[in-house]
Formats: sequence, C-alpha cells, structure tokens
Amino acid sequence: MSINHQLCLRRRPVGMVCADDFFVIGTAIPKLEEGQFLVRNEYISLDPAMRGWVDGKNSYFPPVELGSVMRGITVGRVEQSRHPSYSEGDYVTGMLNVQQYAISNGFQIRAIQPDLVPPPSWLGGLGIPGVTAYYGLKEIGRPKPGETLLVSAAAGAVGSMVGQIGKILGCRVIGVAGSVTKCEYLINNLGFDGAINYRAGPINERLFDTCPNKIDVYFDNVGGRIFDSVLPHMNLYGRIPLCGMISHRYEADQAGFENFRFLLTSRLKIEGFIVSDYVKKLLQTVDILLGWHLEGKLSFKEDIREGDLMHFPLLLNDLFEGKNFGKLIMKI
Amino acid sequence: MSINHQLCLRRRPVGMVCADDFFVIGTAIPKLEEGQFLVRNEYISLDPAMRGWVDGKNSYFPPVELGSVMRGITVGRVEQSRHPSYSEGDYVTGMLNVQQYAISNGFQIRAIQPDLVPPPSWLGGLGIPGVTAYYGLKEIGRPKPGETLLVSAAAGAVGSMVGQIGKILGCRVIGVAGSVTKCEYLINNLGFDGAINYRAGPINERLFDTCPNKIDVYFDNVGGRIFDSVLPHMNLYGRIPLCGMISHRYEADQAGFENFRFLLTSRLKIEGFIVSDYVKKLLQTVDILLGWHLEGKLSFKEDIREGDLMHFPLLLNDLFEGKNFGKLIMKI
Repeated sequence: MSINHQLCLRRRPVGMVCADDFFVIGTAIPKLEEGQFLVRNEYISLDPAMRGWVDGKNSYFPPVELGSVMRGITVGRVEQSRHPSYSEGDYVTGMLNVQQYAISNGFQIRAIQPDLVPPPSWLGGLGIPGVTAYYGLKEIGRPKPGETLLVSAAAGAVGSMVGQIGKILGCRVIGVAGSVTKCEYLINNLGFDGAINYRAGPINERLFDTCPNKIDVYFDNVGGRIFDSVLPHMNLYGRIPLCGMISHRYEADQAGFENFRFLLTSRLKIEGFIVSDYVKKLLQTVDILLGWHLEGKLSFKEDIREGDLMHFPLLLNDLFEGKNFGKLIMKI
Repeated sequence: MSINHQLCLRRRPVGMVCADDFFVIGTAIPKLEEGQFLVRNEYISLDPAMRGWVDGKNSYFPPVELGSVMRGITVGRVEQSRHPSYSEGDYVTGMLNVQQYAISNGFQIRAIQPDLVPPPSWLGGLGIPGVTAYYGLKEIGRPKPGETLLVSAAAGAVGSMVGQIGKILGCRVIGVAGSVTKCEYLINNLGFDGAINYRAGPINERLFDTCPNKIDVYFDNVGGRIFDSVLPHMNLYGRIPLCGMISHRYEADQAGFENFRFLLTSRLKIEGFIVSDYVKKLLQTVDILLGWHLEGKLSFKEDIREGDLMHFPLLLNDLFEGKNFGKLIMKI
C-alpha cells in the first residue's frame, strides 16, 4: 500500500498565504473500487482563484474546509484503473487537488492527448485559462474585426490567450503587462500590436499613444487602478468582460474610482463571468483552441516550477506579485 | 418688439453651481421666418444632467459654451406661428432652453395634450424621466415577474417611475430614498413593497430585511456608497442599469468600492445608458406611459417652484441635496 502526500488547509490565511497556513499529511491510498481509477498528479495548476478558495466565504465554489486537501486542477497519469474508459498510462486533467495521488470516478475529468501537445499546456492554453479567454472574449466581449482590444495581465495565462485570439478574430490588440521583457514578448512572440508596461508609471498617456482609435473591448483581469485608467479611453458602447481582479485582493478594494462616470456617459457594459458557467462548451472550445495551435496561430507558454507540495504557498504568491511569466504550474 | 430674458453661462462652475456662474441678458425677439414659431416657456425642467452640461468636457452632449444660453428642456405655449404644424395656443415641449421665449422650426419638438394631463407632467412622468425609467428598466434591466427590483433615488423623477413600472411588470419593488416622508410616500402612494431611508444609516442590514430573496435588478440613479452596498445583495446574473450617479459629482468619485469583486463572483452585468439613444422610441413610449396613467396605474408627482431665471442655480443645487420631492420644475 502506497502513501499519498496531501497539502491540507490548516487555517484561513490573512492577506498573502504563507507556509504555516497549510500542512502536509501522508495517507494510505485505498484500494480502488469498481468504476474508479488512480491518478498520479504530475503538474498542478496555480491559479489566482485559489487564493479565494481558502477564504471562509462562499463564492462560486464553497470554501476549502479547514483540514481538507487544497483544491486544485492537475494533469496526471493513470496508474491503475477499474474504470472502463481509462487505462493505465492515460493522461487526464481535472480537479484532482494538491496532492500526489487522486482517486476519481471520472466525474468532470477529461482525457488529454500528451502526444499532440505536452501535458502542461493542457493546464494553460488548452485548459481553463484558454477556455476562459475564448469564452470571455468571444461571448462577453464580442469584438468585431478592426476593433481595438485591450487586455490586462496580458502575459499571463488568460491574457496571452485573449490577445492571440483577438488577433485571430481580426482585432488590433494592445496588452498591459508588468515588465519590459513581457511587453517585448507580447509584441515579438505573440503578435500584439502594442504593449504597455504598467510598472513604468501611470498608463493614461500610453493608452492615448497605443489606442488612437480608443478601445472597444477591454478584457479586464486585474481591476483596480488599471481598470479605472482605462474607462476614459473606451469607445461608446464599449464592452468590459470582467474576468479577474487580481489587484483587488490586496490593493484596490480600497482604491477609489475616479472615472466611474464614463460607464454612464460612454454607455459601457461590464459583465462579470466565471468560466465554470461555460463548462458545457468546454470540450468543443478546447478543440477550437487545439486546432488554432496546430495551425501555428496560437502559442502557449508555461512557467513550470519543480517543487514539493510545501512550495505551493510561495508559488501562489508569485502569481499575485506578477513573478510568473506564462501559465504558472508546479511540477511534483 | 418684445424682449427675451435668457440665462447665460458666465464661467465654468467649480463644485456646486452658484448665482455668479450665470448672468441674465435681455435680447430682442427677432421676427419669425417662414417655418418658425415662437414659444413662451412656462415650465423649465431641472435635471441632474444640467450640472454636467456646464462643465467644459465633451460628454454625450457638447458643453454649454461660455456666454451661451443655458440648455434646458421646457414646456411652453406657442404665441405666434409661421409653421404649418403649430398654431397659437398649442403647447409644446423640447430643448427650448433656460429663457423666457424660444424660436423653433419644430426640430425635436413635440406637441403635448395639456387637456389630458397638466403641462408639468410632460416634463416628468411623460417626459424624459419617464422614458428613461421605461427604457432603462425594460430594455436594460429586463426584469421578470416575481423578481426583486431595487431602485435608488426612488422618490425622484426617474426613480418613482421605475418603481411603479416595476410593479406593473410584476416585480417586488423596494426603493431607497432620503427621508421618512419619501419612504412613506413610496409605500403608501406608489405601491412599493418596501423602502429604505439611506439617511438613517448604512443600508446593508435593511437590504437583508427588505430583500429576503436578494435583488435581481438594481436600477442605479446614484452610484457611490449605495451602489457598493447593494452589490453583495445581488442575485447571480443580476442586472444593474446605470442611469445616473448623482452622488459621484461631489462625493463618491473618491470613495472606494469594497464590494467590487461581487461583479465577478455573482456574474453581474452593469450597463450605462443615456435616454437620448432611445429617442426614436420616445413617442411610442410616452403613449404607453400615458395609457398607464389614464388607467390609474401610474401617478406623477412634480415639485414646482415659481421663480425667475436667476433662481435656476439654487434650484439646481436642491436636486443634488435631495431637497426636491418629485420632478423638480421651475415655473417662470
């Protein structure tokens, strides 16, 4: 009988998470029942939403209970199976949590094709971030060819996909990111039409320069001051899909909005969305994204860190400090 | 030849308007040309938007130029006519500005029926506020029967119409207003299901009490702190038509939003709108509202103040201090 190491929540974090908010336990892996299979997790996705899951508040998911295994999306290899659809050696992805091994009955698990695209990309461009980008941009943002699309956290897991999909849909695409290197990457590697480094000062003037026809769709991943700065640059009837507000967790809940009135005067539409609402269309969306990738129109970038389970809290904080470059993934 | 007294803009106001921001001049009324008619303004509408029109910024209307006559919507009587569609004694409404007399060629003017409903109501329930309420609630808010509708500035020109139309459409309707008297009026005279006096302290607890099934549509006339307080009380996929932000002009642009994340987690949709976008449907909407009024389903309330043109700035400020009770109108 093998031992499964699991990362569990010890207490509710205050502010950024720290190592002491979690503990690791080793539990025996039970025998598989009929209809179950055992997965060894190889890659664990680090997502901003995880910080919310460990708060005590009900949100779109119930909170992770104290003492429970930390929720997380992984890619892993099937090691044993008593399930008719999965065999040893298959690769799968799903909510298999921050642990070495997981037992599943197949619910909300999907098989991936690691021969076609390496496993980590199924957590990024072909995972929830890719589907989030596609759904939020196409269904909520509804850009038309020739329109200007601005995306924040543009070098991140979702943002890099949003910008590339925007280009495929015929938009002029500008990204906001947090370093010169990231900005160069957006333009040189992903085909963005422009990029703004928000750490080089207020972005207002550079929005004039990079968006001379103003902005039709602002895909917002950050909220806070960048959101506020963008509002005066939106065209009439502009759309703002609200995908994340990573800045709000520690900064801008308290910051004021100076430009809120533009929501009214420019007749803007803001719409919050959660990709889980879109789960029925997940498989067909992944197929679309995979097709574009295989045609060379859509590239994926992961930032893979090797580590054991106790590295998880530090890595999660990297996301909020913008220290990742591409989809952040822990390899265990 | 008669003299026309006109209220003109002397300088751009800072903060609240004051008498010195304006001046009154007397100009000779020119002879009518073919296709024109002369209107003597009897009632001038006081609207929150007027404060924005005297700022130097381009908004959905260009700013009122320094030295020009103040923009305003009026009801008046045709005194002379060389226009085939208008005769002496007809009553009309339109953008005839803050002055005693106006000459028009009929552009964006509509005749009213003062025998059916007294002239001031054509500036309120049958005017832009009524059309704003109808359009914003029905087209942007899209309430379904049985849903809960919350409206702020609920005793005001737009809010009182929103609430009554909400009742006609089968909603449970709660209003936020600024005095006990106004709240009693909402419940006893307009048929609201509940009312909250925001001057009696933070509204959070009372939102729990009055909206036990939470809120599906929040028709927002004020922005600021009330907007922020409402967000956690919205149901999933709630809609927020953004009609005005009267609190923002002097207060809450600087105030922070503590609950902005609910836009995301509850998948809310916020949509700013300006009734002028809806001008093509104005006449048919007024007919609907008039029909409801004549059936006794929709009542109008005006707060009519007699005064000369120089009273205009003080009256306008009353709007922002919530000193009006019903549609604020100056009778000259």
